[in-house]
Amino acid sequence: MRDFANESRYPMIPMEKAIEIILEIVRPLHPVSIARDELLGHVLAEDVRAEENMPPFATSHMDGYAVVATDDSKRRRVLGEQDAGAQLDVTVRQGTAVRIMTGAPLPPGADAIIPVEETTETDGYVSLPGAVPEGQWVHPVGQDYAVGDLIIPKGSVVGPPEIGLLANLGRSDLLAYPKPRVAVIATGDEIVAADETPGPGQIRDGNSYALCAAIRETGAIAQRVNRIVDNRRALYEAILEAVSETSVVVTSGGVSMGTRDLVKPVLAELGTVHFGRVAVKPGKPLTLATIKGTIVFGLPGFPVSSLVSFENFVRPALRVMMGHRALWRPEVTAYLRHDIAHKPDRTEFQRAVIRQKNGGTWWATTTGSQVSSRLRSLMGANALLRIPR
Amino acid sequence: MRDFANESRYPMIPMEKAIEIILEIVRPLHPVSIARDELLGHVLAEDVRAEENMPPFATSHMDGYAVVATDDSKRRRVLGEQDAGAQLDVTVRQGTAVRIMTGAPLPPGADAIIPVEETTETDGYVSLPGAVPEGQWVHPVGQDYAVGDLIIPKGSVVGPPEIGLLANLGRSDLLAYPKPRVAVIATGDEIVAADETPGPGQIRDGNSYALCAAIRETGAIAQRVNRIVDNRRALYEAILEAVSETSVVVTSGGVSMGTRDLVKPVLAELGTVHFGRVAVKPGKPLTLATIKGTIVFGLPGFPVSSLVSFENFVRPALRVMMGHRALWRPEVTAYLRHDIAHKPDRTEFQRAVIRQKNGGTWWATTTGSQVSSRLRSLMGANALLRIPR
Repeated sequence: MRDFANESRYPMIPMEKAIEIILEIVRPLHPVSIARDELLGHVLAEDVRAEENMPPFATSHMDGYAVVATDDSKRRRVLGEQDAGAQLDVTVRQGTAVRIMTGAPLPPGADAIIPVEETTETDGYVSLPGAVPEGQWVHPVGQDYAVGDLIIPKGSVVGPPEIGLLANLGRSDLLAYPKPRVAVIATGDEIVAADETPGPGQIRDGNSYALCAAIRETGAIAQRVNRIVDNRRALYEAILEAVSETSVVVTSGGVSMGTRDLVKPVLAELGTVHFGRVAVKPGKPLTLATIKGTIVFGLPGFPVSSLVSFENFVRPALRVMMGHRALWRPEVTAYLRHDIAHKPDRTEFQRAVIRQKNGGTWWATTTGSQVSSRLRSLMGANALLRIPR
Repeated sequence: MRDFANESRYPMIPMEKAIEIILEIVRPLHPVSIARDELLGHVLAEDVRAEENMPPFATSHMDGYAVVATDDSKRRRVLGEQDAGAQLDVTVRQGTAVRIMTGAPLPPGADAIIPVEETTETDGYVSLPGAVPEGQWVHPVGQDYAVGDLIIPKGSVVGPPEIGLLANLGRSDLLAYPKPRVAVIATGDEIVAADETPGPGQIRDGNSYALCAAIRETGAIAQRVNRIVDNRRALYEAILEAVSETSVVVTSGGVSMGTRDLVKPVLAELGTVHFGRVAVKPGKPLTLATIKGTIVFGLPGFPVSSLVSFENFVRPALRVMMGHRALWRPEVTAYLRHDIAHKPDRTEFQRAVIRQKNGGTWWATTTGSQVSSRLRSLMGANALLRIPR
C-alpha cells in the first residue's frame, strides 16, 4: 500500500497569479512562410505594403459615358465603347464622349462619368445633361491604396477581406505565426479509449476527445496520444515523447492527491513545475510545467474541470503562441436570474446561458447542477460566469 | 456596339423580402453519417440517448475512505485499497473502511466517503470523525445520466463538450448535416487570377479569394473555379458545370446594367431568377436563382459589395443548409460616435468598429470611406452597422 499525500507540496496561488506566470512563460511561435490559401485565421508576422496603386489607372464607377467635365454641350458624338479589361485608342475632347462600363479605364482626355440613366443615345450621338463636376463617378489612380501604403499591419488576423487584398496585391507566402501542435494525454486506470469496451470499474474517456476538439476550435493542431497512461513509467515516457514532438502537452487527470496521481511528480522529475494548485473552481489542481522548452498543462480529470481549465488557462496560452493580441473572449457584466451557491475562497466559474434584454442588460441562468463530473452542465451554455473570490 | 439596358427588368425588393424568399427556397442538406472525430461544428440530425448509466457504478468523488455512513466508531480497520479501474473483493461493514481513490467504484457495503484530509491512518487502522451523511462524496449510479436519457438533442451544434459526451457513450458515426460545397465564379474582362500579371486595363481578382475564405469561415467547402469568365458562352458553361457539382454557386461581378453584365440573362436562360435587385447598400444588383435544385447567388463585383452581400444573404443560407437554427450574428443597438451620410431609400450597411463602454452601451465608429470598391473599409471592422431605410 502506498501513502496518501495528505498535504500538497504546492502552494495555492490566485488565478490572476497563475495567468501572470503563464503569460511570462509563453511566447509566440517562430513565424513561418504560409501560402495565401492557408492563411485564413492566422496572424501576420510582417507588414504588407502596396507595391502598386489600386486602381492602377483611373476607372469608371458607373456604366455610362466618359466625358470632359467642363464640356456643356447637350449632345455629343460617341467615339466608341470602353470596356473593362482593355484600353480604347481614342481621346475624349469637347463635343465627344465614350461609352464606358463599370470598372473600365478612363480614356485619355476624359475626367468625369455621366451615368447611363441620365442619357439617351441615338445614331451615334448621346444626349446628356451638360457640364458635371470634375472626377464625378471616377475612381482616381491610387484611391484605394497607393504604392508604399501599409495595407495590412503585422499582427492582423487574416480574415476574408485580408485574403482578398493579398490576392489583389498578387501576394502569397506571407510570414505568419504557425498553429501550435498540442499533444493530449489521458491518464487513469479507470478509463479506456472511446472505441473500447470498459471492464469492471472502468468508463470510456471523454476528456482527451473533448480537449482535442477544444484545441482545434482554438485554431491549433490536436494530437491525441492514443494510449491511456496508468503508471509512472508509462506516463514518464509518454510525456517525454510528446514534448519532443509538440509545442504544448496537455494531460488530463492524475493531478489531485491520491496515490495514483502521478502527473506532478513526473513533471517535476522531467522539468520545472511553475505551479501546482490554483484558487479556482473548478480546476484547483491545475499544474504548469516546462520541459525542454515545451509547455505542459496538467489538467484535472473531472470532465468539466478539464474543459473549464482549458478555457481559462490553455486557450489564452495557445492564442499567445499563434500571435494573437486579443487573448480573451468578450466579457460582459450580467445579472443573475436566480441565487447561486458560492464559497468565497476561490474564483468560481459556473456554466450559464446569458441573454440580452432588448439590446441592453445581460441576464444569466446557470445550466443546472454544477458538479464537476457533469459534462452536461456545459451543453447549451454560452458563457462562463466568473464569480470573484 | 451593344445597347445599354437602361432599365432593369427586375423590380427592386426590400431586403426583408429578399431574405424571406431565400429562407423559403433554401432547405437543410440531407443528413449523412459523420465520424465523431469529424463532427466538430456540425449540427446533429438525430437525438443521442444514453444506452448506459453514467457513472455505471457508484464512485468516490474524493480520495479518502469508503465507509458505512451510520457507523460512528472513531477508529476502523482498513480492509484494503480501492483504486480506480478495478473492483476490490471486500465488503465494508461497521468498524471497517476501505481506502479509496477519486473515480474508484464504491466497495460493497460502503455508502459514504470520508475525505483523506479528515483522517489519519496508522498500522492498518484509520482515525476519522464518526458518522457522516449517507451518500457523502459519492457519485451515485446514473447521476450524470441514466439509460434512455436524452443526452444531445437533434439540432445541437457539436462542440467540445458534445464530442466528450459522444466519446463517453462510445458513439461515433452520427447523423448530421454535411458541409455544403460552394463554387465561386469570378466574372469580368478586367480581372485576372491572383497569380497572373494584369495586362493594360486589368487588375488582379480579389473577390473570389475573399469569398472562398468567407465560405470556409462559415464552415462550408469552397471551390474556386480557376478561370475568369468573360463572355456569355463561357459563363453559361461554367455555371452549368458548377451547378452539377455543388449545392450553391456564387458568382462575383457581372450583375449591374452594363452591356457586359451577363450573369442575369444567363441565369434566366438556365433556370429561375427569383429576384434581381434589392433595396440595400451595398449590394443593390444582388440576384438569386435556382438551376436544377442548386441555389445561385449573383453577387456584385465591387469587393465590399461582394463580401457584405455574402454576409447578409449567402451566409444565412449556408447556415440553413448546415442545419443551424441560429442564422444571424449577435445584434446590438449602438450609438454613433460621429455623423454619417445615409440616403434613406435603401437599408444601408456601413463597416464599423464597435466597443462597449464599461459592460454597458455600445459605441460605433465607421472605418473611413465607405466607397464599395474599398476593401480596406472592412479591415479591422468588427461590426456592420445596419441603417434602416
